[in-house]
Amino acid sequence: MPGAHRAAGLHRPHPSSPEEPPAQEDLLLAAAYVSDAQYNRNVPFETSPQAVRLYHFYNHWTMRAATYFFIWGDLALALFEEPALFPLPFLATSIAEVLCLTAFSGRLVHFAKVTPQMVFWKDTKNICIVVTIVLTLIDLIIYGSLEAVNIHGVRWSRALRPVFLINFPESRQIRRAFRSIRNTLPDILYVFLLFIFSMLIFSLMALKLFGDRGLKTVEGSPYFTNILDIAFELYVLVTTANSPDVMMPAYEFNWWYSLYFITYIIINTYIFMSVFLAVVYNNYRKHLKNEIRTLAYLKRHKMIEAFNILKVKVGTEFVVKEAQWRQLAKIVAPDISSSHLELLLRISDEGQKGYVDKMNFLRLADLLNIQVVTINIKRHPLEAWMPRVYQSSPSLLVQKVVRHRIFVWVYDVIILINAIFIALDEKNPLISYAEWLFLSLYIIEILLKLYTYEPRAYFGRKQFWNWFDTLIIIAALVATVANTTIQSARKYNSQQILDIVLILRILRLLRIIVSIQRFRVIVTTLINIGPTMLTFGGLVLVVYYVFAIIGMEVFHGKVHFFDPSSTSPDALECGNPALKDSAFARGRYCRNNFNDLAASLILLTELTVVNQWHVLADGFALVTHQASKLYFIGFHVVVVILIVNIFIAFILEAFFVAYSLEKSEVETAIEKKIQELGVGVQEEEVQDGKLIDNVDAKDSGFSGDDGDNKRKALKGLYFRIASKKYKTVDALLQQMFESEIAPEDEGPSLEEILNFSPSDIHPKNPSFENSA
Amino acid sequence: MPGAHRAAGLHRPHPSSPEEPPAQEDLLLAAAYVSDAQYNRNVPFETSPQAVRLYHFYNHWTMRAATYFFIWGDLALALFEEPALFPLPFLATSIAEVLCLTAFSGRLVHFAKVTPQMVFWKDTKNICIVVTIVLTLIDLIIYGSLEAVNIHGVRWSRALRPVFLINFPESRQIRRAFRSIRNTLPDILYVFLLFIFSMLIFSLMALKLFGDRGLKTVEGSPYFTNILDIAFELYVLVTTANSPDVMMPAYEFNWWYSLYFITYIIINTYIFMSVFLAVVYNNYRKHLKNEIRTLAYLKRHKMIEAFNILKVKVGTEFVVKEAQWRQLAKIVAPDISSSHLELLLRISDEGQKGYVDKMNFLRLADLLNIQVVTINIKRHPLEAWMPRVYQSSPSLLVQKVVRHRIFVWVYDVIILINAIFIALDEKNPLISYAEWLFLSLYIIEILLKLYTYEPRAYFGRKQFWNWFDTLIIIAALVATVANTTIQSARKYNSQQILDIVLILRILRLLRIIVSIQRFRVIVTTLINIGPTMLTFGGLVLVVYYVFAIIGMEVFHGKVHFFDPSSTSPDALECGNPALKDSAFARGRYCRNNFNDLAASLILLTELTVVNQWHVLADGFALVTHQASKLYFIGFHVVVVILIVNIFIAFILEAFFVAYSLEKSEVETAIEKKIQELGVGVQEEEVQDGKLIDNVDAKDSGFSGDDGDNKRKALKGLYFRIASKKYKTVDALLQQMFESEIAPEDEGPSLEEILNFSPSDIHPKNPSFENSA
Repeated sequence: MPGAHRAAGLHRPHPSSPEEPPAQEDLLLAAAYVSDAQYNRNVPFETSPQAVRLYHFYNHWTMRAATYFFIWGDLALALFEEPALFPLPFLATSIAEVLCLTAFSGRLVHFAKVTPQMVFWKDTKNICIVVTIVLTLIDLIIYGSLEAVNIHGVRWSRALRPVFLINFPESRQIRRAFRSIRNTLPDILYVFLLFIFSMLIFSLMALKLFGDRGLKTVEGSPYFTNILDIAFELYVLVTTANSPDVMMPAYEFNWWYSLYFITYIIINTYIFMSVFLAVVYNNYRKHLKNEIRTLAYLKRHKMIEAFNILKVKVGTEFVVKEAQWRQLAKIVAPDISSSHLELLLRISDEGQKGYVDKMNFLRLADLLNIQVVTINIKRHPLEAWMPRVYQSSPSLLVQKVVRHRIFVWVYDVIILINAIFIALDEKNPLISYAEWLFLSLYIIEILLKLYTYEPRAYFGRKQFWNWFDTLIIIAALVATVANTTIQSARKYNSQQILDIVLILRILRLLRIIVSIQRFRVIVTTLINIGPTMLTFGGLVLVVYYVFAIIGMEVFHGKVHFFDPSSTSPDALECGNPALKDSAFARGRYCRNNFNDLAASLILLTELTVVNQWHVLADGFALVTHQASKLYFIGFHVVVVILIVNIFIAFILEAFFVAYSLEKSEVETAIEKKIQELGVGVQEEEVQDGKLIDNVDAKDSGFSGDDGDNKRKALKGLYFRIASKKYKTVDALLQQMFESEIAPEDEGPSLEEILNFSPSDIHPKNPSFENSA
Repeated sequence: MPGAHRAAGLHRPHPSSPEEPPAQEDLLLAAAYVSDAQYNRNVPFETSPQAVRLYHFYNHWTMRAATYFFIWGDLALALFEEPALFPLPFLATSIAEVLCLTAFSGRLVHFAKVTPQMVFWKDTKNICIVVTIVLTLIDLIIYGSLEAVNIHGVRWSRALRPVFLINFPESRQIRRAFRSIRNTLPDILYVFLLFIFSMLIFSLMALKLFGDRGLKTVEGSPYFTNILDIAFELYVLVTTANSPDVMMPAYEFNWWYSLYFITYIIINTYIFMSVFLAVVYNNYRKHLKNEIRTLAYLKRHKMIEAFNILKVKVGTEFVVKEAQWRQLAKIVAPDISSSHLELLLRISDEGQKGYVDKMNFLRLADLLNIQVVTINIKRHPLEAWMPRVYQSSPSLLVQKVVRHRIFVWVYDVIILINAIFIALDEKNPLISYAEWLFLSLYIIEILLKLYTYEPRAYFGRKQFWNWFDTLIIIAALVATVANTTIQSARKYNSQQILDIVLILRILRLLRIIVSIQRFRVIVTTLINIGPTMLTFGGLVLVVYYVFAIIGMEVFHGKVHFFDPSSTSPDALECGNPALKDSAFARGRYCRNNFNDLAASLILLTELTVVNQWHVLADGFALVTHQASKLYFIGFHVVVVILIVNIFIAFILEAFFVAYSLEKSEVETAIEKKIQELGVGVQEEEVQDGKLIDNVDAKDSGFSGDDGDNKRKALKGLYFRIASKKYKTVDALLQQMFESEIAPEDEGPSLEEILNFSPSDIHPKNPSFENSA
């Protein structure tokens, strides 16, 4: 929606002459620009003071949280509507839905007040939302009236609900994933057609080769006699779900015929499916680069706007006064600690001249984005309370032992022994006593660590592994106690709590990952990919939801699940005579049905995993019509061929970026400043608890040659840049791109930025480096 | 084997003073270097005249063809040895094997004569071959003696046979694929361990959650009660082969338990398997680049050696005289046409000064590598024989019609109608007559095209699609005629011929690809990848062969296949009571056995496709021992996790290189020269038959301002660079890298080149371009 951003470029007449300080409203406007740059928001907003205030409110986290609450509430309604997991009357769900729609309308009206009218109505996102709200209301009225006269209608507008999730400005990532898919479509279409063509050619061959032989499948039905059945079987073979069964009758007849199937699999499964991945991946890379470039330039553009608002002339150059800079940073990041702010100012105003020049000002959004961990180093509380005991030689020995590598290894061995005990039968009382022994050992370990390391440093905000370790032990402790209480009370034996205890007891074994460095690296990379994987979760949810709603409308009630203990003769055919003797019923697949939202989503997950999907498709075709196989084929094409391939492309890209990773220029600047000020600590020191030793060493230096000025704000504090590993691929790519724009480069005009196309960025003369 | 190349750097004392022309033996030596550079051979050879002659002989195509003949013969012996597809007595196969071993020894001795002694014994390739020959002989003797006293031994050395295929210097590509795998191993090992760890944690959870519930699988056996069985089931679930069956009992019990399986699949199937691909792909890229760089520098090094041998001083610079250059080119490429040679000389000796300078000389290997198609344009033979008829207006009209786009469309419609007729029942006599009608239409089409276009141009060496078109029609014609003859003779009804006719008749439909441009592009890309895919074929064959030999020794005769018409009660349990009621027997998988090489290879293909592999593994575990599942798991890890991922990495890479493809500098130089001389034609002109028109237009220009000199050698000839699309990924990458080395750069020393490591080339400061 390039047109949507245009209003951001509307210049307000310059508000203040260079001499007088900018007014509060100018600061708010500049803060809006900086905040948008920091979070890569690209919402064009009006620059009148009132609109800016509304815009700040619009971006407030409570407003966004409320929006998401209503979006998820709206989606969750499917749980309570017919066919329901937890049935509620139509009146209740429809009132809830109207409430959600009102909230969406409110949010939209708020947005319309913020953004210029022209832009608002040009943006397809807004139009989509308006249309969906109207359609949903119409559908509600029709369905309600029909229901009133006892005619059962179809609530078709439910399939439109994901529109809200996609189209609110906050869901940029999901929209991008959809754009990726849309951009890939033209390229993939021809490959897909060729693939279909090849499949049809093979179907014809199969009909001619096997059709007249009178062969029978394992089930005794005729083998390869109908061209449509053959085409379906061969499509299933591409997904490998019916290999080698589909080949066996022909193979038994003559072993040469296996070559037909092997050729088919090589061409269609291996080559075509890899080509799909290649096409998807190539498009994903191309468009990702383009979007990142656009984002980077838009960000710079916004920072320049903000600078222009606040600039005053000092000597020959325009600068931003320190006071304004402070006010601005406080508005953009209200929660920033004053020491952190001080550190950032030191970096921006290198010479302590009392103002920030343009180049340093432009870095503000990046500076705010870098997570600087402030560590308030103090002596161990025990040392403060009873220094003599804590520093006594037995105490020091304990601390030395705990810090030693062997301490870690001993506990690794204990965990392994624990694993063996868990695997053994727990009915044996000796083993259930051992459980308590292990728990106490783990608790002793944590207490020892807290005795040795400074507790607040040990549980620092970014000490992921320490938190992980402790939480798992505490959870297991609570669960085991709860379990024992319940068991001894013998009043009831809660299945859920027992299961949770079991799982927690086993999850404790994950601690072994913490002590093997190579494992920790892999897990950190995976966690790093996590946030973007949630985007994928959103994308998958949208597609699943639409398919689930359609599936529930079409297949609801066709297949019934009977309790395994049921003796009803219908249980063997899932309550539907059409399924008698089918592979679906024989596989006991009755619970795989569309009778409520949860069952539908689980069934769709099974279809995504692919295996046996043809049995499920056949089953539902038997209870309805052969054409319903199209639903399952459509799901396979959309989810497996498109979305799973984009997921793989994304993981590949994330790994390659992680491999070629360096510190950003801004990070380096911050680190240098931290080092210069002598207030830095290494991440490893915190993690391994070596902090205290270092502090002593540095304390002396601190009081020696450092001036008053530095100590005033930063005394007793240490800073550390949060691990670069915890960054998303997007952020890393953007950082790489920005490091390639010269700091004084103001970038192309807004018009040009919004019309970037992937082909501009694709190198005309590819080099050896970037092609392989 | 870096040491192996070192001898190529040994300088012989310079053979001739700059004044006198080089002797024949110097030319041979230089030719050996140029030829090695052209084909990227890196064999260190002695530079004595006799050794050089032997080396030329060593590289002669007959010698290489003979070596491959014996290698394939040796591998094929498994078809005739017990358990045999075509049984031969042990004496016959052992004599054949000894013959092959003799041939290998001969080839090795030949190589030892060519290469310096020191180098020969340092090369692991040679030592591998020697050891394998000796081991095979020992095995043959032991097995033979045991056989003589009627004890059945194990022919274990058969699993070593692929060593010959891997280790002969000609199999560089296969060795590289193996090196890729080996290089990936350390990186993948830790991911694999973490994956196994996660699998074990989940196994423990499953044991605790489901073990005591008394659940039953569909087959009625206890569900998830044994930790080893659970681990196997969960490994199978990673391959998705038992989804959703493995989950159904737990899901039926309580729907919450499906979350356990969904979590497992997301973590282990989707995330871990993608990470495997990412690790393999990243390593593949890194090492590919390094090897390409090494090859490029070695090539330049060899060309400089060749230049130093032939150089003479003219004025201030060293050059190679035209006469020597011609002789050299004739030795390196004996089949080169004199006009082609003339063209290359024009390019190398731009100013026609009678000598080639160093920079142009270094390009010789590249020049020889570029396929220049020489088109000897003549008028249509009919025009020469009966010009008046051919140029008459009806004839011209026919030609115009044939060249028209609509002509193609009409035939596309005919093909589609033909497809429908094929799909219909051919018992109907009307339809079998229609078959003849279609055939005649196709033949008329070809005749019309031959009438319109010059036949030799139409069937030019690189006119792939014309050949394809014509061959399919001719084959279908021959097959249909043969079929009718057989059917009318009614003496016997050959199954094979009938099948071939059927397939050919359908393959005819592929012609439709020819007329859709987008399809043609995709197919051309796929064909382009073809040669390297054959490398993969080699790699897969090696692994399959080893697994097949082991499988035949272990599982031979355990499972029997009975003819489908057999009424023996054993047929239901594949002749083995252990299989009674097993999924293996129920699926009628009896023919999936290890009773001969062909059956084993087909079974291994099924395992590669993955689906139902656990049923096969279970079946063979039932007839032998549970431990034999390890064989199947090992096969899955090696083939699916490593080799298939490398295959996908290769396809992805091939596509990306193809996307970012440009003409090489040398190609551009050749094309420029061709244009300068006015002897160029475009590929499309030849393909679309527009040639004649162009010739007329150019003929006039030719006789106009072109000098005698140009016409002398090139009169009546036209040149065209063979499509760049028909190149391997390697060649394209090497070309990209070479275009980045300055022409005057002599590259690092041989020592340095051979010690390149991938980390050197990996960019220290990755740029935005090459990271995403």
